[in-house]
Amino acid sequence: MPDGPPSPVADAGGADAPASGSAGVLTGAGVSPGVGAGPVVRVAGSVPEPAAATHGGTPEDVRAEQAAATAALEAVAADLEARGDRAAAAGNTEAREVLRAQAMMALDPGLADGIAVRIGEGTTAARAVFEAFAVYREMLAGAGEYLAARVTDLDDVRDRAVARLLGLPVPGVPRRDDPFVLVARDLAPADTAVLDPAQVVAFVTEEGGPTSHTAILARTMGVPAVVACPGAADLAEGTPVLVDGAAGTVRIDPAEAEIEAALSTSAVRASLTAASTGPGATKDGHAVPLLANIGGPKDVRAALEAGAEGVGLYRTEFLFLDRATPPSDAEQEAAYRTVLEAFPQGKVVVRALDAGADKPLAFLPPPGQEPNPALGERGLRMLMRHPEVLSAQLGALARAAAGLTVRLEVMAPMVTDVAEARAFAAACAEAGIDHPGIMIEVPAAALRAGDLAPEVEFFSVGTNDLTQYACAADRQIGALARLQDAWQPAVLDLVALTAEAAADTERGCGVCGEAAADPMLACVLVGLGVTSLSMSAPSLPLVRAVLARHTLAECRRAAVAARSARSADEARAAARSELPALADLGL
Amino acid sequence: MPDGPPSPVADAGGADAPASGSAGVLTGAGVSPGVGAGPVVRVAGSVPEPAAATHGGTPEDVRAEQAAATAALEAVAADLEARGDRAAAAGNTEAREVLRAQAMMALDPGLADGIAVRIGEGTTAARAVFEAFAVYREMLAGAGEYLAARVTDLDDVRDRAVARLLGLPVPGVPRRDDPFVLVARDLAPADTAVLDPAQVVAFVTEEGGPTSHTAILARTMGVPAVVACPGAADLAEGTPVLVDGAAGTVRIDPAEAEIEAALSTSAVRASLTAASTGPGATKDGHAVPLLANIGGPKDVRAALEAGAEGVGLYRTEFLFLDRATPPSDAEQEAAYRTVLEAFPQGKVVVRALDAGADKPLAFLPPPGQEPNPALGERGLRMLMRHPEVLSAQLGALARAAAGLTVRLEVMAPMVTDVAEARAFAAACAEAGIDHPGIMIEVPAAALRAGDLAPEVEFFSVGTNDLTQYACAADRQIGALARLQDAWQPAVLDLVALTAEAAADTERGCGVCGEAAADPMLACVLVGLGVTSLSMSAPSLPLVRAVLARHTLAECRRAAVAARSARSADEARAAARSELPALADLGL
Repeated sequence: MPDGPPSPVADAGGADAPASGSAGVLTGAGVSPGVGAGPVVRVAGSVPEPAAATHGGTPEDVRAEQAAATAALEAVAADLEARGDRAAAAGNTEAREVLRAQAMMALDPGLADGIAVRIGEGTTAARAVFEAFAVYREMLAGAGEYLAARVTDLDDVRDRAVARLLGLPVPGVPRRDDPFVLVARDLAPADTAVLDPAQVVAFVTEEGGPTSHTAILARTMGVPAVVACPGAADLAEGTPVLVDGAAGTVRIDPAEAEIEAALSTSAVRASLTAASTGPGATKDGHAVPLLANIGGPKDVRAALEAGAEGVGLYRTEFLFLDRATPPSDAEQEAAYRTVLEAFPQGKVVVRALDAGADKPLAFLPPPGQEPNPALGERGLRMLMRHPEVLSAQLGALARAAAGLTVRLEVMAPMVTDVAEARAFAAACAEAGIDHPGIMIEVPAAALRAGDLAPEVEFFSVGTNDLTQYACAADRQIGALARLQDAWQPAVLDLVALTAEAAADTERGCGVCGEAAADPMLACVLVGLGVTSLSMSAPSLPLVRAVLARHTLAECRRAAVAARSARSADEARAAARSELPALADLGL
Repeated sequence: MPDGPPSPVADAGGADAPASGSAGVLTGAGVSPGVGAGPVVRVAGSVPEPAAATHGGTPEDVRAEQAAATAALEAVAADLEARGDRAAAAGNTEAREVLRAQAMMALDPGLADGIAVRIGEGTTAARAVFEAFAVYREMLAGAGEYLAARVTDLDDVRDRAVARLLGLPVPGVPRRDDPFVLVARDLAPADTAVLDPAQVVAFVTEEGGPTSHTAILARTMGVPAVVACPGAADLAEGTPVLVDGAAGTVRIDPAEAEIEAALSTSAVRASLTAASTGPGATKDGHAVPLLANIGGPKDVRAALEAGAEGVGLYRTEFLFLDRATPPSDAEQEAAYRTVLEAFPQGKVVVRALDAGADKPLAFLPPPGQEPNPALGERGLRMLMRHPEVLSAQLGALARAAAGLTVRLEVMAPMVTDVAEARAFAAACAEAGIDHPGIMIEVPAAALRAGDLAPEVEFFSVGTNDLTQYACAADRQIGALARLQDAWQPAVLDLVALTAEAAADTERGCGVCGEAAADPMLACVLVGLGVTSLSMSAPSLPLVRAVLARHTLAECRRAAVAARSARSADEARAAARSELPALADLGL
């Protein structure tokens, strides 16, 4: 079975063939913008699978192996906690959370039981650790995107423990004195969290995706990163590379002039971006509110620092994850109020609980085994099965907003048709929520946005899922990245249909998917008629700067040009030719 | 966790609320047309799970339990074979194939090993059989629609063996003298295959779907059937019901006049349908070729008997399923030639191997675990990973057609964008296939049909998958049936876009999904610009008769009316009002 991505058969060629693999440049997914150049440093090799060996078998052996296993896991946990504290001291609190979660994995009682049973049966400590982790690994890997992404974390904990037990070097990033580009199959949080951004100039990983820890932490650290990059595994130690985290490219053996041009462009971009402040608007003053995507109160500070005019997507799942019962009304109200209070002049768009698919909740299990969770009872479909969960959340939101000046809007995920939109609006009205809206992420909803508009006050386009369904290409499968591209003209058509329906009925139409964070695509979205853009906080400044340098007419011409294209790459090229100021920012 | 379907929350109401559950009528999926009335007969209760008991433990005990298990499984296999022979003698060769497959399950050596190991460990024969089947069951249940649908068959084999070992009555349909409506959770092939259609007037099952054996066998037997019908499990033995296998309804305690009207309508429909022969066309002579969907040479006879003008969808997966290596070139060529020779004046549209998703192939495994196989590397995506499989199939098709007068067309499944369409056309050209086409089943392909048309000669809309992706609703989840409805206006929009693009470029645009078999929807599809309809053979006569009674102008008005609707039910009602002759046929 070939390992490479399924490129169209060789002789298809032409403008539509993917650029990946052309001479001297690797192409992946750019998940953290910026440019970095330096020699490749590879993460130390993986820890081998310990052989299926048995110990002496005496009670003393059992005790000794057990003690070794416990000591190794405790040392791993302590090390991860220490790394977390160092990261937090450097301002990276997100990394600390991840590392603490890993430390908890190492100390998980169920895992300890699994290890003890195996050691009791005669298995060596190293092998027992390996096997006990394997059971957890399989569970996680099969449990949807959110948990599957934790497999890398789990493997890292296992490798650290096994390495200690076998007396091998603990895997991780080697210490260097000079700046370098870190290359790996996939990075574990422990690898990335304590890196010095001044030393690591870019990340490149063969695997991972926009929701991998590499991507999230790279953005938090402000380090350029390219993930899901085929061929990265073959980059030899020391190879000079030039990484463009916006374009998603890795140029091998770049010329010195090329590096200088890229770095100077990047510096210019950073300074122009920093100079661009205030509310989002086009050059000719057409307002486009720039909002932040957040996962909870902890993300509010970054949003405010990046100049967010409010929150365009407040994901409430994180309140509900990893618990056997829903959060209490009071707990919900408090979390929501913290966020709402932070934007007294702005608006906050809360997404009702989006359970199911890649975010399974222990207390809201799917009604049966779902062969394709992404096409199953997720989002509003699940809330309709459990109306008491929806009404409790809406009630908590209404109480949280009482007496505040913020504009609270609440939207339903995974709405497909009129009946669902109507039902959600009715539930909002009953709870005293004045501004109901819906996510547009199902193709049918985009196609029929005109039918849905009268039922609600606003739309918010979720480009990630919309692209996934429109192209029938799973977001979690790297080999289908070519199809999981919001620049696909069909996806632009769906956004246009949605925005047109919104304009006809004087509804707002935001975008809160990853597409909004692509500065060039942001201009195209505005040209298609999108009225606000929401993205992760670090992406806001560059989008603000790019938007401020283009007129609404230019954005519209770029949108028309992109929709005239027959492929995602052609759409990019066509839009670029209509957005002259991109070059000022080196984009 | 509530068991019912997720209806929009109660106060949504209005015209968009599903009809299911209204007084006196159960609603499910009508999967085999016709009307039947009679008292409910329930399939005999299920066999209980044998207790986890141990036998005496002596070598004699092991031998005795082993002998009992073997004897029970052999008896089950022999009984299933005998039922298959009886079914075949009654003309139902499809049932024989299914029953033979079940007999092979009973005699599976891996299963026998699993049973022997457990008996050797002290478990009783009945319990050992139960546990060994459970291992297989889990594998099948997790392996996608095609194999998961076989779980019912496997459970039936297990229950028959366990019943024999415990001395319980073998489950199945009780013998009756008077006609009755058979009601079950889900029917096993062994239950349905030897039924007398004159005695069983209809099937109703709580579970199952359009691809379940109940559905397939009911259509083959010409018995009306409603599956996925919530509430069916609560129907008491002896309750009079009126089943409409076209509408998917089960009326409880119907009035005598209601039954008479329904039966007389059904009789009129049957006689008018039988009188309608010849090539498909509207009343005013607009030709709409009516073609058959087939799975291999075995289906050719039924297609010819139903007057199919050719084959609109030849699914080639069945040649490739359940084998470790692909069929040889010669084997492929022979199978294809048998089909091609049967239609000397017609055309045969072959779909290139559609591996992946719910049809995993042993020799073409997906490249990794796919969290959502329906959104994974299936269809052409998989063939592009394995171009040698595609070129072997295309070569065999070209050789099979050599010297024949039939028009051979070959289409690719799961095409998303221009690059893929172009690559497939290039592969066809290389193999000497003159008429390449593509399935339109991904929303992006329908939206961008105008871009795809220049690359190929024809489109064939796969409404089942197109609906699944457009509405992001898994075909395999009964609770989402409301969204898995080709009458959803968004789906009609996508068909219209496809047909318009085909007309603009003078390409053919067929439909080969289940939608083509719905007589009213068939008229709407023709009105949308679809140029041919392909369906399972038993559905052809009624579609021919309905089409022959309506003008193209009426079909077009029905299409416009349906697209003006805001829900699937409204679309049905709107189309009906423009198709006056439906009433002649009692539709």
